[in-house]
Order: sequence, then structure tokens, then C-alpha cells
Amino acid sequence: MKKHIKALQNLIGQENVKADKPHRLAYSYDATREHFEPDVVVFPKDEEDVSKILRYCNEHKIPVVPRGAGSGFTGGALPVGGGVVLAVEKYMNKILEIDTKNMVAVVQPGVINKDLQREVEKHGLFYPPDPASQDYSTLGGNVAENAGGMRAAKYGITKDYVMALRAVLPNGDIIRAGKRTIKDVAGYNIPGILIASEGTLAVITEITLKLLSKPKLTKTVMGVFPTVTAAMNAVYKSLAGGANPVAMEFLDNLTIRAVEEKFHKGLPVEAGAILISDIDGNVEEEIDYQIGLLEKFFKQNGATEFRIAKDEKEAADIWFARRNASQSITIYGSKKINEDVTVPRSELPRYLEEVEKISKKYNVKIPCFGHTGDGNVHTNVMVDGSDPKQVEIGYKAIEEIFQMTIDIGGTLSGEHGIGLSKAPFMKMAFSEAELGLFRRIKEAFDPNNILNPGKMGL
Amino acid sequence: MKKHIKALQNLIGQENVKADKPHRLAYSYDATREHFEPDVVVFPKDEEDVSKILRYCNEHKIPVVPRGAGSGFTGGALPVGGGVVLAVEKYMNKILEIDTKNMVAVVQPGVINKDLQREVEKHGLFYPPDPASQDYSTLGGNVAENAGGMRAAKYGITKDYVMALRAVLPNGDIIRAGKRTIKDVAGYNIPGILIASEGTLAVITEITLKLLSKPKLTKTVMGVFPTVTAAMNAVYKSLAGGANPVAMEFLDNLTIRAVEEKFHKGLPVEAGAILISDIDGNVEEEIDYQIGLLEKFFKQNGATEFRIAKDEKEAADIWFARRNASQSITIYGSKKINEDVTVPRSELPRYLEEVEKISKKYNVKIPCFGHTGDGNVHTNVMVDGSDPKQVEIGYKAIEEIFQMTIDIGGTLSGEHGIGLSKAPFMKMAFSEAELGLFRRIKEAFDPNNILNPGKMGL
Repeated sequence: MKKHIKALQNLIGQENVKADKPHRLAYSYDATREHFEPDVVVFPKDEEDVSKILRYCNEHKIPVVPRGAGSGFTGGALPVGGGVVLAVEKYMNKILEIDTKNMVAVVQPGVINKDLQREVEKHGLFYPPDPASQDYSTLGGNVAENAGGMRAAKYGITKDYVMALRAVLPNGDIIRAGKRTIKDVAGYNIPGILIASEGTLAVITEITLKLLSKPKLTKTVMGVFPTVTAAMNAVYKSLAGGANPVAMEFLDNLTIRAVEEKFHKGLPVEAGAILISDIDGNVEEEIDYQIGLLEKFFKQNGATEFRIAKDEKEAADIWFARRNASQSITIYGSKKINEDVTVPRSELPRYLEEVEKISKKYNVKIPCFGHTGDGNVHTNVMVDGSDPKQVEIGYKAIEEIFQMTIDIGGTLSGEHGIGLSKAPFMKMAFSEAELGLFRRIKEAFDPNNILNPGKMGL
Repeated sequence: MKKHIKALQNLIGQENVKADKPHRLAYSYDATREHFEPDVVVFPKDEEDVSKILRYCNEHKIPVVPRGAGSGFTGGALPVGGGVVLAVEKYMNKILEIDTKNMVAVVQPGVINKDLQREVEKHGLFYPPDPASQDYSTLGGNVAENAGGMRAAKYGITKDYVMALRAVLPNGDIIRAGKRTIKDVAGYNIPGILIASEGTLAVITEITLKLLSKPKLTKTVMGVFPTVTAAMNAVYKSLAGGANPVAMEFLDNLTIRAVEEKFHKGLPVEAGAILISDIDGNVEEEIDYQIGLLEKFFKQNGATEFRIAKDEKEAADIWFARRNASQSITIYGSKKINEDVTVPRSELPRYLEEVEKISKKYNVKIPCFGHTGDGNVHTNVMVDGSDPKQVEIGYKAIEEIFQMTIDIGGTLSGEHGIGLSKAPFMKMAFSEAELGLFRRIKEAFDPNNILNPGKMGL
């Protein structure tokens, strides 16, 4: 490896290739808290550097793991087989252009999601995808994982905003795919296959994103429901009934109690569930129309309370519970086995009833919250991390949840990807023919299997 | 070939395998008016039949060309090397499900676009993609070509509605990809790469489409402009200024004159261009807000007239000109070399100025109209089809238009695909590295190159 480190230093500069212990440690982690030390961390200054690194590593069959902020939940950025971590956050972190005429932003992969949101909003524009990690996750990572967020119910997910990419193939070839045009059907849809490919096919070096006009008005509403089933019925019936909320988030009773215990905000701790929804638009009457639909469907499905926030402070109070759900539920166990399964919206009532049964069967607490507007439920199996037996039980419960999810037409992952942690379940979700096709696609891009090897169960 | 025809008859039934001259002729054409006779036409009853056909043809290396309505403009459904035409319109033409709870439709590939639109609208739902061929083109073809349409400015194109696909690989393997969920990031994005793959990677056997709620109100407006440049400035400035029209269509002076000459509707024949726009929404105030924006930006950019249709009849009158543009411009020449280039919206003024220069240079009339809301201009080089020299000049003009389009950041095709007719221009649009990647992807799906060979310049 020493020889390779020297060679990489010659290629992109000594100061941009780090093999000391502190760097190897710092780049060994991600949000899974697992860790694997790379042999070396490289900081490319630009696309040319990325190309040089990949060409060299491809020739010498050295694994390369692209990395943004390392905030992923499934180990996508972990260098499981050692090798090179290619970190884009140091240099390749510029917003290159905000093209207000075409409503397009061009960014490097290391730009932080929220920084782009802030910048485009100065121009009256809007970049909707807002993963919970928006304050620190990078847009390169967002594209690699096809990140979602709270606003997906109305505005969709990262793939709905990627117009074009520049990328470097494992052999060092630089490609561009897509155009700064709404339509482009020339050639295969390369952006389509690079999105959600978890850094296994190419290293993304530039992203062209579609922007929208920022709606002028937003309002927040909350519904309180006696049971989770009532709330879940309200979710899909509202949407099928014509409501088009920006977000339609939910907290179950365990989550409500946890937030209340931690923050004493006067939440309805007896409620089976609460739903929180944002509505946006440009005219008051449109907002009122949408709120009217939500009120109707919430009440028809048993809501005992329907509250409209009067101002920004009240809206922030309502959102407080949702934003602090994830950290609050740690009262139920020191280890959180946190999954992001997604089901067809009409299966939400059944999904949560089945989770309840599994919770009882294994005698573990499973607080749930999340993006019910798009069927995405953050399902958290809470166990005592210091008790290996409990941890094992937790994983058994998760496995049963995965199987049940697939049985009702859902998917292993709505947002977080497969990475390392869900790789063992790929055979549950895909046939041998499908997995074989994945492998052949991987080979078409990366015949030496140097890019993020060992991920996605391939 | 006789042996193979027998074998196919044994596999899927004698009555579903036709090698007689009338069938071979009927399936030799598409909307390009070029023709290539297949050796045999097969009519699979279901996915199992498709699998049997492909497995057999793959073993014997016989070309298979999937075909919907054969309404494509670039020869995608033409069997250029003979072999088998696999026609889905006879049996695989059912709407399998309209799931109102999840706002999803499941269809076979031979369903006609407009039939689905009509059916879902009975449930208050909405399938936005509306290619000009909507009355006869199939959804399988729409997916294979990633069809657009008038409503793309606000609602996007086919790819924005495909949630899941079932498909058969050339080796006969049946795969499903995607879920009936808004989010799904497990595994590679196979629907993403099958969309726009022009029947070269797999045969699509089932399509799950996202539906929206049908907006309650629609209004139509028209703006008259002294020059094309003024109109094109109005287009991109309206959108950048917050307008969100369903459609933003344009006709240039040549097109206006052609429609007027044919139909005597009192169109403004002195105008440089007209813009036609639909606005939709659920409340009057939202419609008024949007119309206000269009009026402001149209007038700021020189509109001499801004008309709001008072009722459906007036709206239909306004749309009449646009709907009859394509057939009317044949007054300028018996042969129409009809392209669908797309440019970033802010480049529309420059694009049309350059087309004007090319028109003068080659002394050919080039009427333009189309979907300017998404930068997509139908550019029609009109020549005397009986004069080979004129036809040659026409193609030279088109080649220069393609090069200019690419130079200003546009794409060869916004809607029609590459197929046969644009294949010679792929080298103009893509680097050797990009074309090499396309070929490797093709090989990953179709190692024997049996599926729609000779298309897309691969």
C-alpha cells in the first residue's frame, strides 16, 4: 500500500493524500456507528483529480469508497474492505451556478443540502428535497442514496430534481448525462441509474438540479387521533380525496410520550397518534381549500382535535414534537435499530397493526413516526445495547418486519438505501434474476469491482 | 426461418404467430413512413408468452422488435434486420387496476394513453402525460420512448409517473422493478434505465403509474407577440417569475399563416408568434393569480394582445390553431423533416434566431411550434419530397440545427427518441466514453443483441 500512497500523492499532491492514523480513524465511521478503517483518504480538488485517482485504483484493483458527509444510515460510505476513501467535502463543495432564468442549480457533490436550499431561496427559488440530515448531508450523498424528506408527499424526492450529472467511471472516463432541459430522451437514462446506486457505479462530480418557485404561503395543521389505525386511514383518504399537503407526518403514542417526557410541551399523551401537515400555496383561498379537505378527512376518520397554527410560533411548536422524535425515543433503549420501510399508503393501517403484533411477540418497544404522506414509516426497534440477547431479539423483530413489509407490497428502504446493513435482506426482496441483472449492471460500469465493493448485497 | 415460425407457433399457439404477407406488410411501418418487413409477427397473450418468445429467440439469436401502436417518429418499432415483431396491442391491452386508495393505475403495455386518461378521470384522478399521439399511442411505447406532451411544463413527462414495471429480459427472465410506493431505494433503479430505452433492453409487460387528483378548474389564455424573440422572452421570464402553467405552447408566423390559410379562423397572420397557455387549479383565486402573472410577463415582453378564454368554446377556438399546426404546415412542402429538439428555456430566443438564419442560408421554410414551456420546439424543415436535391438540402439544414442545438446546451430529442432516424447524430451528442457505456449497458441486458438491434446508434 505504501507504494500506492506515494503514487496517489504524485497524482494529486502530497497534501491531499492522508494515511495517518487520525485521518484513517476520522473517515472510518458513518451514522451507523460501525467502523472500518481505510488505508488512505484522498481529497480530490476537481473532476480531473477524481479521474486520476480512479484510473490508478482501477489499474491496481484498489477499492475506492466515495464519501460526502458520512451521514448515511446504512453504511454506504464505510470502506469495508479498506482501500481508498475518496472524500469530496473538502474541495468539491461549491455551488457553481444558480441559473435563475432556467430555474436550475449546478453544484459539486460536497455541497450541503441546506446550504443550497438557503442560497436558492434568496432568489425566490425552492429546492424541495429535505432529508432529516439536511443540515449536514451532501447533495452528492443525497443523489447516491436518492434521499427523501418531509416534503416528499407533495414534491417528490431527489430523483425528481436531478436533470443532469457529470461523473467519473471506474476506468477514469469522464461522462456527462442529461441536460439543462426539462426533457431529454437521447441515449440511455444514465442519471436514472446513477441515482440511488450508492456509489457503486461511478463517482458523481457535478449535479444539475431543477428548482421550483418558492410558494408564498405556508400553514401548519395538526390532528389528534384515538388510534394509529384511525390516523392512517385519515392519511390515505385525505390524499385520495384530493388533498395535496407538502408534508403529512405522524407520531405514534410511544413517540408522543417520549417527546413529552423529555420536553414537557403539553402533548396529548393519551392520543393513539398525531398527524402534522404543512400546506403551501400562493393564495390564501388555495390554502383554505386544502385545509378544509384535511379537516374533513381527519374528522371523518375520528380526529378528536384539529388545530390550525395561527402563526409561525404555533407552527414551530407543532413541528417541535416531530423534529425531536428521533432523539426522544432513546428513553426506550440505548440501541435503536432504525429502519425506513415504505408501504403503499392504503397499507399503512395494516402495517402499523402488524408492527404492534411483532412488538408484543418479541416484547420490545417499537416507536414509529415518519413520512406517512408517502407511506414511509421510520420504525425503531429499541433495545438495551449492552445486552447481546436483547440486540439479537431486536434484529429478529426487524427481520420479521421486513418480511411483512414485502408481503404487503412495501420496500426495504424508502430513503436510507441498502448499503451494508440491509444487504442481508436483498434476497428477501429480489429474485435471482433481478439480483443477476444488478450484478451485470455493476459489471458494465465497474468490471474490476473497485467502487464501493461489498455494498447492496451484490 | 420456417423452422422458427413453427417453433414459435408451438410455443404460443398457431393463431398468434403470423408470417403471411399482409401481416408482414402491416407491421413493417411506423410514423416515419419508412418500412422494413419482419419475418414474422407474434401476438403474446401474456407475460409468460413474452418470456417464451424471448427465450427462444435469444437461443437462436433472432431479432425481436417490441411494438405498441407503431406511432413513433424515429423508427423505434421498425424491424430493420427482419426477425420477429412482438406486437402487444392485440392481447396485452388491459387496464388491470385503478387503485383509487393509492392513486395508482396498473396497465398492460398495449393500453392506449387516452383510454387510461379517460378511465382514471371517471374516478376524479388524472394521468398528465399527453403526447400528441395520445389517441392511438400505447403506454408501453410511451414508457419506452419517455413520451412528453403539452402538459409537461407543469406536470413533467412519462418518467415522472412510472412507479414500477414488470418486464422480460432477452433471456426470458421475468423481473419486476419498483413498487406501488412513492419511495423505493432498494436496488438499482431499473425502471429509471428501462424508461427511454426504446425497446432495446427488455420487453415491458406491466406498468404501474402514479396518478394525481384531477384539478377542478382550467382556463386558457393567448398572447400575441410582434416577434418570436419577444414571445420566447415572455416564456422563460413568466416561468422564472413564478408562473406555473400546465402548458405554454407556441406557434411562429409561418405556422400561424399555414393554419389560417387552411382553416380561416381569423388568426393574427401578421404576428411574429402566439403563445397559448392553460392554467389549472382548484380555486378561482389561484387561477386568477396565475393568469395575472402571465399577463404581466407577456405584456412586459411586448405582447400586443392578451386574451382570456371566457368559456370552453373560446378555449377550444384558441387551441384549434395549435392542434392543427402539424397538418397545416404541409402547405410548405410535401416532405416534413420533423425534429423535436429541446433547449434550456432561456436559450429559446437564440435557438429560434439561429433557426431563422439556417432557413435563409439553405433557402428552406422551417415553421416551428411546440412545447416552449419546457424548451421543446418542434422544428419542421419543409421540402418538396419529389426533389432529391431539396431533400438533401433539408437534411443538411437539420444537421446544422442539431449541431447548433448541442452547442447551446440542448438535446437531439425531447420526446421522440433516437431510434433509427437520429442514430447518425449520436456521435455529435455523446463522447466515445458515453457511447461505450451505453453499449456495455445494452450488453448487460442483452448480450446476444436480439432486442431491437440497430437502434439508438449502438
